[in-house]
Amino acid sequence: MTAPTSHRWLRWPTRPDEPRMAFGADYNPEQWPREVWAEDVAAMRGAGVNVVSVAIFSWARLQPAPDRFDFAWLDEVMDLMHVHDIAVDLATATASPPPWLTTLHPEVLPVSFEGHTVWPGARQHWRPTSPVFREHALRLVRAVAERYAEHPALAAWHVSNELGCHNVHDYSDDAARAFRTWLQARYGSVEALNHAWATSFWSQRYGAWEEVLPPRFAGHGSFINPTQRLDFQRFSSDALAEHLRAERDVLVAITPDVPVTTNFMVMGETRGMDYAAWAADVDFVSNDHYVQDGERPLDELSFSANLTGGIAGGRPWFLMEHSTSAVNWKSVNVPKRPGHLVRDSLTHVGHGADAVCYFQWRQSQGGAEKYHSAMLPHAGTGTALHRTVQELGVRLAALSPVVGSSRRPADIAIVFDWDSWWAAEGSGTPTQELRYRQEALDWYSACLDLGLRADVVPLAADLSGYALVVAPVLHVVPAALAERLEAYVAGGGHLVTTYFSGVVDEHDHVWLGGYPGALRDLLGLRIEEFGPLEPGTSVDLDNGTAGSVWADGVDLVDPAVEVRVRYKDGVHAGSPAVTRRPVGAGSASYVGTRLGASGVAPVLADLARDAGVVSELPEEARGAVELIRREREGEQYRFLVNRTDGYVELPAPAGEVIDGAAPASDRLVIAPREVVVVRSAD
Amino acid sequence: MTAPTSHRWLRWPTRPDEPRMAFGADYNPEQWPREVWAEDVAAMRGAGVNVVSVAIFSWARLQPAPDRFDFAWLDEVMDLMHVHDIAVDLATATASPPPWLTTLHPEVLPVSFEGHTVWPGARQHWRPTSPVFREHALRLVRAVAERYAEHPALAAWHVSNELGCHNVHDYSDDAARAFRTWLQARYGSVEALNHAWATSFWSQRYGAWEEVLPPRFAGHGSFINPTQRLDFQRFSSDALAEHLRAERDVLVAITPDVPVTTNFMVMGETRGMDYAAWAADVDFVSNDHYVQDGERPLDELSFSANLTGGIAGGRPWFLMEHSTSAVNWKSVNVPKRPGHLVRDSLTHVGHGADAVCYFQWRQSQGGAEKYHSAMLPHAGTGTALHRTVQELGVRLAALSPVVGSSRRPADIAIVFDWDSWWAAEGSGTPTQELRYRQEALDWYSACLDLGLRADVVPLAADLSGYALVVAPVLHVVPAALAERLEAYVAGGGHLVTTYFSGVVDEHDHVWLGGYPGALRDLLGLRIEEFGPLEPGTSVDLDNGTAGSVWADGVDLVDPAVEVRVRYKDGVHAGSPAVTRRPVGAGSASYVGTRLGASGVAPVLADLARDAGVVSELPEEARGAVELIRREREGEQYRFLVNRTDGYVELPAPAGEVIDGAAPASDRLVIAPREVVVVRSAD
Amino acid sequence: MTAPTSHRWLRWPTRPDEPRMAFGADYNPEQWPREVWAEDVAAMRGAGVNVVSVAIFSWARLQPAPDRFDFAWLDEVMDLMHVHDIAVDLATATASPPPWLTTLHPEVLPVSFEGHTVWPGARQHWRPTSPVFREHALRLVRAVAERYAEHPALAAWHVSNELGCHNVHDYSDDAARAFRTWLQARYGSVEALNHAWATSFWSQRYGAWEEVLPPRFAGHGSFINPTQRLDFQRFSSDALAEHLRAERDVLVAITPDVPVTTNFMVMGETRGMDYAAWAADVDFVSNDHYVQDGERPLDELSFSANLTGGIAGGRPWFLMEHSTSAVNWKSVNVPKRPGHLVRDSLTHVGHGADAVCYFQWRQSQGGAEKYHSAMLPHAGTGTALHRTVQELGVRLAALSPVVGSSRRPADIAIVFDWDSWWAAEGSGTPTQELRYRQEALDWYSACLDLGLRADVVPLAADLSGYALVVAPVLHVVPAALAERLEAYVAGGGHLVTTYFSGVVDEHDHVWLGGYPGALRDLLGLRIEEFGPLEPGTSVDLDNGTAGSVWADGVDLVDPAVEVRVRYKDGVHAGSPAVTRRPVGAGSASYVGTRLGASGVAPVLADLARDAGVVSELPEEARGAVELIRREREGEQYRFLVNRTDGYVELPAPAGEVIDGAAPASDRLVIAPREVVVVRSAD
Repeated sequence: MTAPTSHRWLRWPTRPDEPRMAFGADYNPEQWPREVWAEDVAAMRGAGVNVVSVAIFSWARLQPAPDRFDFAWLDEVMDLMHVHDIAVDLATATASPPPWLTTLHPEVLPVSFEGHTVWPGARQHWRPTSPVFREHALRLVRAVAERYAEHPALAAWHVSNELGCHNVHDYSDDAARAFRTWLQARYGSVEALNHAWATSFWSQRYGAWEEVLPPRFAGHGSFINPTQRLDFQRFSSDALAEHLRAERDVLVAITPDVPVTTNFMVMGETRGMDYAAWAADVDFVSNDHYVQDGERPLDELSFSANLTGGIAGGRPWFLMEHSTSAVNWKSVNVPKRPGHLVRDSLTHVGHGADAVCYFQWRQSQGGAEKYHSAMLPHAGTGTALHRTVQELGVRLAALSPVVGSSRRPADIAIVFDWDSWWAAEGSGTPTQELRYRQEALDWYSACLDLGLRADVVPLAADLSGYALVVAPVLHVVPAALAERLEAYVAGGGHLVTTYFSGVVDEHDHVWLGGYPGALRDLLGLRIEEFGPLEPGTSVDLDNGTAGSVWADGVDLVDPAVEVRVRYKDGVHAGSPAVTRRPVGAGSASYVGTRLGASGVAPVLADLARDAGVVSELPEEARGAVELIRREREGEQYRFLVNRTDGYVELPAPAGEVIDGAAPASDRLVIAPREVVVVRSAD
Repeated sequence: MTAPTSHRWLRWPTRPDEPRMAFGADYNPEQWPREVWAEDVAAMRGAGVNVVSVAIFSWARLQPAPDRFDFAWLDEVMDLMHVHDIAVDLATATASPPPWLTTLHPEVLPVSFEGHTVWPGARQHWRPTSPVFREHALRLVRAVAERYAEHPALAAWHVSNELGCHNVHDYSDDAARAFRTWLQARYGSVEALNHAWATSFWSQRYGAWEEVLPPRFAGHGSFINPTQRLDFQRFSSDALAEHLRAERDVLVAITPDVPVTTNFMVMGETRGMDYAAWAADVDFVSNDHYVQDGERPLDELSFSANLTGGIAGGRPWFLMEHSTSAVNWKSVNVPKRPGHLVRDSLTHVGHGADAVCYFQWRQSQGGAEKYHSAMLPHAGTGTALHRTVQELGVRLAALSPVVGSSRRPADIAIVFDWDSWWAAEGSGTPTQELRYRQEALDWYSACLDLGLRADVVPLAADLSGYALVVAPVLHVVPAALAERLEAYVAGGGHLVTTYFSGVVDEHDHVWLGGYPGALRDLLGLRIEEFGPLEPGTSVDLDNGTAGSVWADGVDLVDPAVEVRVRYKDGVHAGSPAVTRRPVGAGSASYVGTRLGASGVAPVLADLARDAGVVSELPEEARGAVELIRREREGEQYRFLVNRTDGYVELPAPAGEVIDGAAPASDRLVIAPREVVVVRSAD
Repeated sequence: MTAPTSHRWLRWPTRPDEPRMAFGADYNPEQWPREVWAEDVAAMRGAGVNVVSVAIFSWARLQPAPDRFDFAWLDEVMDLMHVHDIAVDLATATASPPPWLTTLHPEVLPVSFEGHTVWPGARQHWRPTSPVFREHALRLVRAVAERYAEHPALAAWHVSNELGCHNVHDYSDDAARAFRTWLQARYGSVEALNHAWATSFWSQRYGAWEEVLPPRFAGHGSFINPTQRLDFQRFSSDALAEHLRAERDVLVAITPDVPVTTNFMVMGETRGMDYAAWAADVDFVSNDHYVQDGERPLDELSFSANLTGGIAGGRPWFLMEHSTSAVNWKSVNVPKRPGHLVRDSLTHVGHGADAVCYFQWRQSQGGAEKYHSAMLPHAGTGTALHRTVQELGVRLAALSPVVGSSRRPADIAIVFDWDSWWAAEGSGTPTQELRYRQEALDWYSACLDLGLRADVVPLAADLSGYALVVAPVLHVVPAALAERLEAYVAGGGHLVTTYFSGVVDEHDHVWLGGYPGALRDLLGLRIEEFGPLEPGTSVDLDNGTAGSVWADGVDLVDPAVEVRVRYKDGVHAGSPAVTRRPVGAGSASYVGTRLGASGVAPVLADLARDAGVVSELPEEARGAVELIRREREGEQYRFLVNRTDGYVELPAPAGEVIDGAAPASDRLVIAPREVVVVRSAD
């Protein structure tokens, strides 16, 4: 597990030992005249804000020219925060370079896949691998760190911002050079690279490192070497992590006692950064999350928060950004409906967030995100939105007992793996309709529908404690992973995997002899050809549901394998669609088709029962309520989140309601979209 | 108002004082062997053609090499026209540079947003800001002007052609230089630029002018500074106008008595050129219009013609291009149906066109537009199409009394504003589904459906004479404009505006305190959050219609505000959707949702009634007939356009039918798609 | 006719005179360790494989550095093949350049339309016109040819691979230079070029050859000179053919007795290469075909195979690649269903393939096409797929008598022409919905539905022997072609053509005087305006079918013209939609709308009857069975292909069943998707 090794939380400047939920936002005072700052602080205090992230996009202001720094305004802001007991998560301010830098050094500008220069005008227009950019960025980090090392408001360092949001895939010559260095470290020799990349195909054999390039535009409709692409994805993620470490190292050298973080983006289809591998490089995990479009946005939020907790190793994490209402970057940006703001925030808290922060404090008057909601909207403090923010501040204060508690492990783990995400959705695969993250989310939604708690964990997590491990589309399975999974099952664990799993090794080379390659023996079956389905078509199953996207034709090899569901029609009518191979006290199950959340539910109910996993919720609440649990020694917290737009009634749980409406009798009634938090002895 | 200050019409070479409707086309004799020219002139005479635009794309022919001019063929053509009493609108021939120029000076080629060179192969491949291009173009203009200054066929100068059709947005280094110059003139100091562009957002603060760039490609999915984009749109329009003035100044110096024009493109989604600002630079306004795809193409034609009239300050204008039948640049190019050719042309005349010209006289045999219809089609003179052209010539001759008359002002004005168009459809807005021009067109269509005449006018027009002013999505409202509108209402005017109006100032900075910012007090209401709707969804209204795209939640601030329509469902069910605030004898109304043409109709009927505006058409003709009115001292002209495919019968209007079928009794019957023009005393 | 002039077939190393069907695949041993090679050969023998194509993508392996060749491994492979009596179609290995070459000479990389460099990473990243690439490629060809000139396994030379698949349209400066040379050869003078390209339009007149460029990106929404585009398409095809000849000439000089081929791609929308013009440059025609998406994939396969036969002049050809099951380059790659593999292969054989080869022998473990099916799948030899391959080997052995026989000419010819394909689907045409190849395919499908045999032939083929010639959308008709068609009809032939035919000459100049220009007199009709229809709309016809895409309004000029079908509605209601002009014993028919396969059927039945063409199938088999015929002196072969998923029963044909289930009585029953081959005396 690569979660933060040194877990150190925000260093509260005052009353450092008093537990409190962090509440606040990005604060960009440089967008406003100084007279507004006083209003800001007053309103922050009124809303219960106790932390702000400052200077994220202040490079141009802090360093207006190559050899001139201007810290006066930031000194004033820092002091103001300190005076009002608001902690500062201070950015290194390197997120977006100032115009003078890109004018002086256009060679820091990224280059797109097609070869276009990425010009200034938006943000984050820098090559992660540019030595010139690195030098300038670290110089600024050093200047900021030295300036504020001793400032009493300083609570944490915020490295850059949403690293990789726009610049994760850079195809420049700097990237080419760094890619080669990364490959040399990974493979040692050109020969090993040739093997890994299967360069005997299409005459791609390299004679020297200098010949290697990023997977640049190779013609419309061309299929680029898939391992070259996969390695470039790995490299691109690592290159950003290297930048993170470079800034962190400067900070640690100057302020060894101040924790360092950076905001991840565990959400939706943001996929370029393997955050599981980054977690070791921060003192605590931070995340930005915005509600995604889709059929089940609340499930996605819970899934992302859960996975963030998994990346954080079950320890608390920092919700650095989310939105109070509408965002501005979708095609259509609908405001949040009443109840959503609080429910969204508290669902994050349930999943381990000890901080509830937003982009941003005060809605901008100009610039690219002026239509993004904020804690303090254009319309001012006397608005429904701001009143809700104030109410949330009060509720978060009531949740201070929760602070510092950990995730209480569930019986079920859902495994999430960036390598499989990247490789399974590569080009030239059996189908471009496969959605790795959606498949995992479907299984998670089915858990929610059944009232089963599940932990979403990175692949490297210790799985041994889980009764049931679901690894959907676990496409990349190196030999060691296959052994790990075999050992898990041999130890009595119940493993579930799906179509297109176990197919390739770490080089994206197919395991031969029939699919699912590396997991074939464990699952006791064999597939000769993949079964992608045409878009819009589906196959009926004999349990009354239907499969889409994919339908494998499965041959059973081990006679002990039980068939749980069969195809009713299609080319594989009568053949197994869902199988389960008992292995001692454990089992290994295979799902050969995409079931979707509603189709997963009966299958999961079946497999969970056999794994001895039962719901922790009373029957009437299952599906309607998400139960989330945190714990510390001797104490635990249950978050009961009403997922519906109706009232939900259930037996009052043991313990004390510390947030939300307490039960009036032996029944607890949770209002639509509301959250109740219960504290009890362990 | 910026309409032409010096209004001077086409200088007819013969019988200059005899009023006549100009009728003709672009004429490109260089595409044909000389023997065809004689046929051409004979057929022109046969069709009543009296004007042609010549030499528009003749640069390569007139100047076959840098230091060689060849005017012989054009001399011959000019003489031929003169002999046959056909006036010539002579182009400066700079529309498209010859191959030798772009070979010698590839630095005149535009650069696309993504950084692609725009190569020769089509047309108009020149940077509006290239000093090299300018020098060569002006040299040609001078040569042409000197050659034909005294030619008796010369009736007007035609600067370039459809300026900006392909090259309005050039991202080259020349553009960058000129953009900086433009910004310096606009803002004076870098500090003022920083304020206007809100560069404190995302670390974009400039230290020097040299750092400023056009809004070039900044990465897929990036959001470029919106004011930078808006200013680049303004600059791009201005840069073309500057080119227009540069050519004009050469012409005026040589032939002070010859009027100068250039053909605008007021139509459809052509949006790059703020023609309201260009009008002052020509002696008379010319326009090109092609029928657009869409549900109500005839309404769009009328709207465009009407707006062209508005840009021309109500004075006559020159319809430089439209089509006799199919065009060639759509995905599917359907020919015009019987009746459409004449109705389209005469609708333009009703709205002020004293010229009816086409692209082009003779359909090309080769080249990119050979499938574009013409006055003389591939199939020759003996065709239905050419016979219709000949009939139109006869009808236009009958309309000569109309020539020179002005638009008779309507009671209703619909305001059209390029700044609002550009800003409201920028990126990062609440919804990308908003269509500025369509909203204005919807209100216009509702006027047509109700039989109400409306003038479409640019924002700078004098609105004081209008009883009712509709300013849909008037998004950009500088302080002075807000004052103008307040004064209009205070003076008894009735103002109607819609969602997303009054939101920003001239820098695209949001007016704070609640929407619709600058118009909040005037409208007596306040909106806390914008209400974009998901595509495909709508909200029902209590008047039986429905809103889409947007549905604001409106809080009434002034208790005097009347609620005319309320939402029946959706998040704002029961809240006001349409409001009206009486202000003395005037009023200010707000429509918080997109109603579409059919939904606007009842609301507009209601508001027009309260404004004392009534239809000038008998009830049975409303909706079926468009009434257009022109006037001169002591005389007026009514154009009655049958918008339907059926017969329309109405009481015979007072006056004399000068075109179309006269009434047989006291009833006038207008045939399907037909037009009747009535002259009467004022 | 440009079919191979020297037709020489594969030179079998052993028993050269024993006729045998070639059976095999691309074989890429360099992707596998040497120990796998022995397994490969054993399995090949087991499956009846007798030929493999080797070294197609081996450049990087054969020439690992500029001055180093490594033939050892290939020597071993060649010997291995020889020992096991497997013939080798040996590639020149130039298909894809090695990394060292593109590193040393980036100037060989193609440039896209937009100006993007096409980088290595996929394959075929070379400019067809690069002198540097040519030099290196020919050096390799020479080395390979000299090395294996005398090798006993060598059966044929395989030039490059799928020439033009990715690099047909290169816009580089090399391409510009070569394009100019090509144009000089075609036109002789700049003046002739100016005439042909109609450069008087839009000021495009050239003064010198140096000014001419490929039709590069000219701005979004721009319309590039159509003749420039058409000539660039012609040039691009010719440039590749020139490369083919350059490699061939090296080979012929070294091994005059070894036949040379290259694999064409007659399939689907692959359109860049005018294979009819290439056929003269190979000793035998080879083709690659992959089943296309679409409503009638089997018809498309038959059409492509048929056209390949036509290109081969009716002589046998070599099916170089097709797939045993799924491909990997579609969005969704569904495996073949049972029966499809054999039926697909044998349909090719029926249409003249004397070789049945696949991409590839052994499915790759890594690289861009590892999910492409092969003869030996990932799952190994003990799979249903491989067993089917083995069965096919047995069946092909039984078909050896067929080898060397020719296509037996049908009564109907369907003409296919690349010039018309390119020009009719150009930009700026009446509709972008027109699909040239689909129209031809519709007529072919109608033939299949009616049980009528048709030959698909290139335009240059001798048509005189056909009773009925269908030339759908024969758009480009130079004067000589018009004369040819007139002569055909005058000679008693029956010609059918459709909308948008006869419109332009070889320069894409419109024939004046009314459409269909060059064919107007022959057809006895005249069209004034084209009749494209809006997408999604159609017009009803009085024979109960409907037309879409296009509906011409036809005026009859010759009173002898018979109207076969009329429009029932639309703007041309009552007008002729299908006409037939008797001309002596012949006729010329016109179809003014797109009928689709089902709409073509009744019209074709009608016209075929009048042409005296009758089905060669018993009535019960028509539509259900495709009949294909091959012949040699004194002997003929009937292929009866069951197109359906049901059993088809018909009277047992005379002759001996040499493949497939023989008749049990006087009735022949063909199982679903099965094929029966019958030999009989002529």
